Amino acid sequence: MSEPDIFYVLGNKVRRDLLSHLTCSECYFSFLSSKVSVSSTAVAKHLKIMEREGILEPYEKDEHFIGPARKYYRINIANTYVTTITPNLFWYENIDLREGGKKGDYEINLSKLPEEHGDIISMVKAFLEANDELKKILEALRDVEAYRDGLTKLLKERYLSEIGDMTQLAILHYLLINGEATVDELSDRLNMKEREVLAKAQELNRFVPLKIKGEVIEIDRASL
Amino acid sequence: MSEPDIFYVLGNKVRRDLLSHLTCSECYFSFLSSKVSVSSTAVAKHLKIMEREGILEPYEKDEHFIGPARKYYRINIANTYVTTITPNLFWYENIDLREGGKKGDYEINLSKLPEEHGDIISMVKAFLEANDELKKILEALRDVEAYRDGLTKLLKERYLSEIGDMTQLAILHYLLINGEATVDELSDRLNMKEREVLAKAQELNRFVPLKIKGEVIEIDRASL
Repeated sequence: MSEPDIFYVLGNKVRRDLLSHLTCSECYFSFLSSKVSVSSTAVAKHLKIMEREGILEPYEKDEHFIGPARKYYRINIANTYVTTITPNLFWYENIDLREGGKKGDYEINLSKLPEEHGDIISMVKAFLEANDELKKILEALRDVEAYRDGLTKLLKERYLSEIGDMTQLAILHYLLINGEATVDELSDRLNMKEREVLAKAQELNRFVPLKIKGEVIEIDRASL
Repeated sequence: MSEPDIFYVLGNKVRRDLLSHLTCSECYFSFLSSKVSVSSTAVAKHLKIMEREGILEPYEKDEHFIGPARKYYRINIANTYVTTITPNLFWYENIDLREGGKKGDYEINLSKLPEEHGDIISMVKAFLEANDELKKILEALRDVEAYRDGLTKLLKERYLSEIGDMTQLAILHYLLINGEATVDELSDRLNMKEREVLAKAQELNRFVPLKIKGEVIEIDRASL
């Protein structure tokens, strides 16, 4: 999928919500439909669009009970998109995370870039030097995102096999990616009542130490 | 403007083309309209959408000739957007370049991130460490983009005051941001015939050394 298509897909809140759910749970149609506040017809349409654009892939899963196999969906790409828009710059790049994963060290030296500029040639030179630093930054971004992707996959598998609670995992997943969460945000994301969210956070707290202060929940890093 | 709105704006090729033109020239309506291959009604609609979303700002310019002042447009934001989509991660962030500009040095150490994982707690720890590195990477990205933005602004002003050719500048601008260009790409971007593009590139070559090899044009870095 090219970059422009991804902008189209992301330009819709329901599609973004569906993508969020798809990253933390195994998702079949009626589960996804229960998590967003539009009709199931609309959900079907959005899933169709994302399938057509190659972002989603449907799959079937044997669930060991009678009836037709359920249709599940999974995200089929692993990309980071970077776009800059200023009065002077407009560019976008699609970074394929599957090409990364070497976990290198990078020295980004921006202090050496000249602050005062002489003629046009020296400005062009400075721009190309800045491009070199940008290139390293984008490589580092690719590597760290490939790492976080792989680690999240392992963590999800481990959490489900050891503790087995999908909602606890969804809260942990949100906290890892967003740093912290309000009960309200989680209630909205998980489509659960606030006191149910708090109860689930307390359960999660038995396995991963949390700081729960009033409305705000975060991972208690000092206690890890 | 929030991130989601920007995805909507970027999800359309004509709007992306208009944004490209706006970053390298002073743009009034009929100029923009001549550069894209849709009707002027459609161009007006797209400009309206971007104005409504706060991306574009119209302004008037005294042109020292008789008649009403022409309406110009300029880009009104300076942001870098980063989005990751994988089967396990989905997040997006809007980085405001106006908050950057300190031009620091950054050491990104990904090699220290553990490859083997023990229990859930050690995986959570590793994820938070990766988050710390990601944070530095995004700060470096903000700084380098703020630098490139400011430098491009100066370079555009200098080129127009010293050499004064808008088309040469547009080619230089494209080469700086994209590294290299084919004559075909430039012909498409500038809405000019290929031999006109080549003639303009030859003119630019008198001020900024270029390598023009067959179809491909790039800045001749060794000769700077």
